[in-house]
Amino acid sequence: MKIGFIGLGHMGQAMAGRLLQQGHEVVVFNRTLDKAQPLRDKGATVARSVADACQADAVITMVSDDAAVDGIVFGDDGLLRHLPDASIHISSSTISVGMAERLARAHAEARKRFVAAPVLGRPEAAENGLLFVLAAGEQSLLDCVEPVFRALGQRAFVISERPEHALLVKLASNFLIASVMESLGEAMALVEKGNVDPHRFVAIVTSSLFDAPVYRTYGDLIADRKFAPPQFAAALGEKDVRLGLQAAEDLRVPMPIANLIHDRFLRLLAHDEAVDWSAIGGLAADDAGILRT
Amino acid sequence: MKIGFIGLGHMGQAMAGRLLQQGHEVVVFNRTLDKAQPLRDKGATVARSVADACQADAVITMVSDDAAVDGIVFGDDGLLRHLPDASIHISSSTISVGMAERLARAHAEARKRFVAAPVLGRPEAAENGLLFVLAAGEQSLLDCVEPVFRALGQRAFVISERPEHALLVKLASNFLIASVMESLGEAMALVEKGNVDPHRFVAIVTSSLFDAPVYRTYGDLIADRKFAPPQFAAALGEKDVRLGLQAAEDLRVPMPIANLIHDRFLRLLAHDEAVDWSAIGGLAADDAGILRT
Amino acid sequence: MKIGFIGLGHMGQAMAGRLLQQGHEVVVFNRTLDKAQPLRDKGATVARSVADACQADAVITMVSDDAAVDGIVFGDDGLLRHLPDASIHISSSTISVGMAERLARAHAEARKRFVAAPVLGRPEAAENGLLFVLAAGEQSLLDCVEPVFRALGQRAFVISERPEHALLVKLASNFLIASVMESLGEAMALVEKGNVDPHRFVAIVTSSLFDAPVYRTYGDLIADRKFAPPQFAAALGEKDVRLGLQAAEDLRVPMPIANLIHDRFLRLLAHDEAVDWSAIGGLAADDAGILRT
Amino acid sequence: MKIGFIGLGHMGQAMAGRLLQQGHEVVVFNRTLDKAQPLRDKGATVARSVADACQADAVITMVSDDAAVDGIVFGDDGLLRHLPDASIHISSSTISVGMAERLARAHAEARKRFVAAPVLGRPEAAENGLLFVLAAGEQSLLDCVEPVFRALGQRAFVISERPEHALLVKLASNFLIASVMESLGEAMALVEKGNVDPHRFVAIVTSSLFDAPVYRTYGDLIADRKFAPPQFAAALGEKDVRLGLQAAEDLRVPMPIANLIHDRFLRLLAHDEAVDWSAIGGLAADDAGILRT
Repeated sequence: MKIGFIGLGHMGQAMAGRLLQQGHEVVVFNRTLDKAQPLRDKGATVARSVADACQADAVITMVSDDAAVDGIVFGDDGLLRHLPDASIHISSSTISVGMAERLARAHAEARKRFVAAPVLGRPEAAENGLLFVLAAGEQSLLDCVEPVFRALGQRAFVISERPEHALLVKLASNFLIASVMESLGEAMALVEKGNVDPHRFVAIVTSSLFDAPVYRTYGDLIADRKFAPPQFAAALGEKDVRLGLQAAEDLRVPMPIANLIHDRFLRLLAHDEAVDWSAIGGLAADDAGILRT
Repeated sequence: MKIGFIGLGHMGQAMAGRLLQQGHEVVVFNRTLDKAQPLRDKGATVARSVADACQADAVITMVSDDAAVDGIVFGDDGLLRHLPDASIHISSSTISVGMAERLARAHAEARKRFVAAPVLGRPEAAENGLLFVLAAGEQSLLDCVEPVFRALGQRAFVISERPEHALLVKLASNFLIASVMESLGEAMALVEKGNVDPHRFVAIVTSSLFDAPVYRTYGDLIADRKFAPPQFAAALGEKDVRLGLQAAEDLRVPMPIANLIHDRFLRLLAHDEAVDWSAIGGLAADDAGILRT
Repeated sequence: MKIGFIGLGHMGQAMAGRLLQQGHEVVVFNRTLDKAQPLRDKGATVARSVADACQADAVITMVSDDAAVDGIVFGDDGLLRHLPDASIHISSSTISVGMAERLARAHAEARKRFVAAPVLGRPEAAENGLLFVLAAGEQSLLDCVEPVFRALGQRAFVISERPEHALLVKLASNFLIASVMESLGEAMALVEKGNVDPHRFVAIVTSSLFDAPVYRTYGDLIADRKFAPPQFAAALGEKDVRLGLQAAEDLRVPMPIANLIHDRFLRLLAHDEAVDWSAIGGLAADDAGILRT
Repeated sequence: MKIGFIGLGHMGQAMAGRLLQQGHEVVVFNRTLDKAQPLRDKGATVARSVADACQADAVITMVSDDAAVDGIVFGDDGLLRHLPDASIHISSSTISVGMAERLARAHAEARKRFVAAPVLGRPEAAENGLLFVLAAGEQSLLDCVEPVFRALGQRAFVISERPEHALLVKLASNFLIASVMESLGEAMALVEKGNVDPHRFVAIVTSSLFDAPVYRTYGDLIADRKFAPPQFAAALGEKDVRLGLQAAEDLRVPMPIANLIHDRFLRLLAHDEAVDWSAIGGLAADDAGILRT
């Protein structure tokens, strides 16, 4: 397929690279063009504008937040005006549920085709096609872009016909990951202050009840308390939990752990932006007075 | 081996039954003797006293709390006085870290052999030898009782030479399980109130990042909001989290999620004792005004 | 002075009435005109438009939220276009810190005069001139409108030259009130479940260390658990705490009690909108299983 | 009256001194006798034993915790054995509700007369007779010791006939004070990071809605972030909140702010014991990255 790809941050680059590697024709666009160079070397065409990047069978947008989506989609130069009627806009950005609803509505009014497909996984997973795709939209559209999902992810889950549902699942999933980091941080501070090696603790729990990648990955990071350089920056983690809480506010769902985690992120960001989001897992040890080695 | 087994609650019965089934000779004791009948039918000898149950190569105690351990171990009729010097006391009860220290000290002073070996898993796992054993004590003693661990568990983890460390790991692990239930409860209340089927959500997260038994087991229980009859009663869950917080108090480790979960348990117990501990995962939905179907 | 008054909710009506009673000439405007009738009876002139209400020495806006302020101030028919250069816009609404900054900037660019003056107190206090005025803006402007403050409040506090600071103090104060309600609710649930009369408890603490109106007012409401009809609706309380948390997010200030209280409000609103904000003080008793009498 | 006084910590010394100053005959006892010297200089008799201190019309115990009370009251040399039948034991220590129940029961069984009378206030207040006395016990006994209460406090409140109720009110009151410190800490971190002078904020709120000594005292301490040397040590604050939570656990009353505050105390104690309990009010500013000046 010919795929437009807008937004070349860490994840965007990795995803676009994967699409190229899987044999798709990819037209990339980024506000700052230098980020496009590595993809050009791999065979991508570099578009000069959003409009140019829209000349494709499907256009993926993968940008940082609601404001960036707003800037790309709406306005005279925007995707909504330039997307061909036969093409499909695949929104993979982690945006608010409200923005997903707005996008769905705007595309419907403009008689454009739209699906949401945020993903779970880090850039390395994206490079190797190991993402999980959370897809939502009309089934016929999801069927059309299935080759894209197959190239990007080890598995695609269809949530429902309503694009905003994919965002809700994405935000709830990221909340679950963050709550693993916080609860591991507390448990490990407890055992470590009681003189049990936290690495040993991680090895035990991940060999028994918590035999899942997320516990292994973050357990060892937290035991080492090595939170820099960031792989997924704390500011992005804060944003995701905040968007989850915003949905919770709109739906009137009290989420005490989510609030606690959000405060943890604010505390991190008040001191040092340049840390990985897993650094929230080190705050319990800080509070317990455990010195970093 | 000849094994004394004191304490025939749900877990005790299942563990003693498993030991019998694996060919060990088992002498059981329980304060109320009627609980011993099913095991007698399977070939166990029923002891009339703690002292009688101590005439074995190893004696496992598996009772509900510190007070019960105190009643069994200390005093004129207690295990400490009647345990043969060559035998080994294996404490599998979930007790406080402080009580584990006290037991270790008392056995050392009386020149008796002692290890702690609390377990992870429910009664069904115990029946099928699928527990995880968290063992701590002198290595030579752990070697001696290795056949017991092999019969009971799919795996035994040696934590350290100090018995109280096994309790610390056990309490930290149970806290992690409870925090999964609470965080799943919040995430599922969010998606459900946003009209995403919570079972679908559980299926997605357990097929992607949270591919671990604990998420599958509790995810479905919480989605169904079927918390009775209890498999592991809320009062026991409360006890375990409280013991964890007691250790945290002694070690001065702030654990905000643990406190939040403890409050959830108090709320459950203030209304209805007869629920499973996973019922804490239903409180977020209650707070969000989601009606039970 | 001749005073324009825009926004005739409970507080607006009471404040405009007080200004009339103190001898000021008042021109009132409300989106739905029927609310203006009682004030017309007291001598107010009823304006047909925001522009009409602006023909005064000072114009007070007292509306429900950022969106309402936006609708009144900006646009072709808005206050900003029609405010005479010599007049002063006094913003008394509880709005976001960000909106206060935006208003300050917009007025400065349009060379219009602007101060913020949110108030502390309920409508009864407003009727009797017993509000506390939190004023911020250029000192010379505050001096000009001092007669207005004197009519409305028992006391006016000058915060600083920057209007948004008044909002920050207002939001922080409302948070303090809400935290009194929550902490009283917890303390009273504890003593009541321990068989101490909660009214007796309120009488004791308000006669000793907590001899302040806010403890007396809310202590008795919470002891009675009579939260309807609302005086200050839970939805407004939720809004104020949310605006405080929004400022905290922007400034990166973790506020755990504020989050807890915000969740309390969401829980109320998920079940019943038509309650007073003090109803958050009844949730601890609900959680403790204390039946309402 | 002739009054025995056992326990000469900061509060005990101040209270015993006040009794002397008001003309009572006072026999003091302390485990370490050197603390008795200043009181001897003021006219007190120094007892050599608990038994000696019991030879009085009333005996006040004012010690640090349950264990200290246990050591003084029970055993062969204890107060319970040596208290004359006509004398009255006034327990002023802040102890657990459970210990108060145990004392009441033990005195009743021994046919000894017992009341509980914990106090609110700092040592300075005690020196000047400005405490608040929280009295509980049989009315006839409270009448007998009324002169003692009048000497010590500006006011005595009778809670009920059951001594443990006085402790419940005392612990709930101390929780309220601690929650004021935490909520002030959060509010002040918010305004300070938004560039409003926190002293100005304290002045405003204590001149309006929060015109109570506890807000003035702690507001300024927190604005200054001067938490050493301690007047009331953080470890004692932690104890009081812990005893409150212990009562809440027994009564099954979830208290989220109390848990949050308890964690704040653990965090303080993990780093530095030698601070005032009001130091919990500085943690929000720490978390917000506000530097101490």
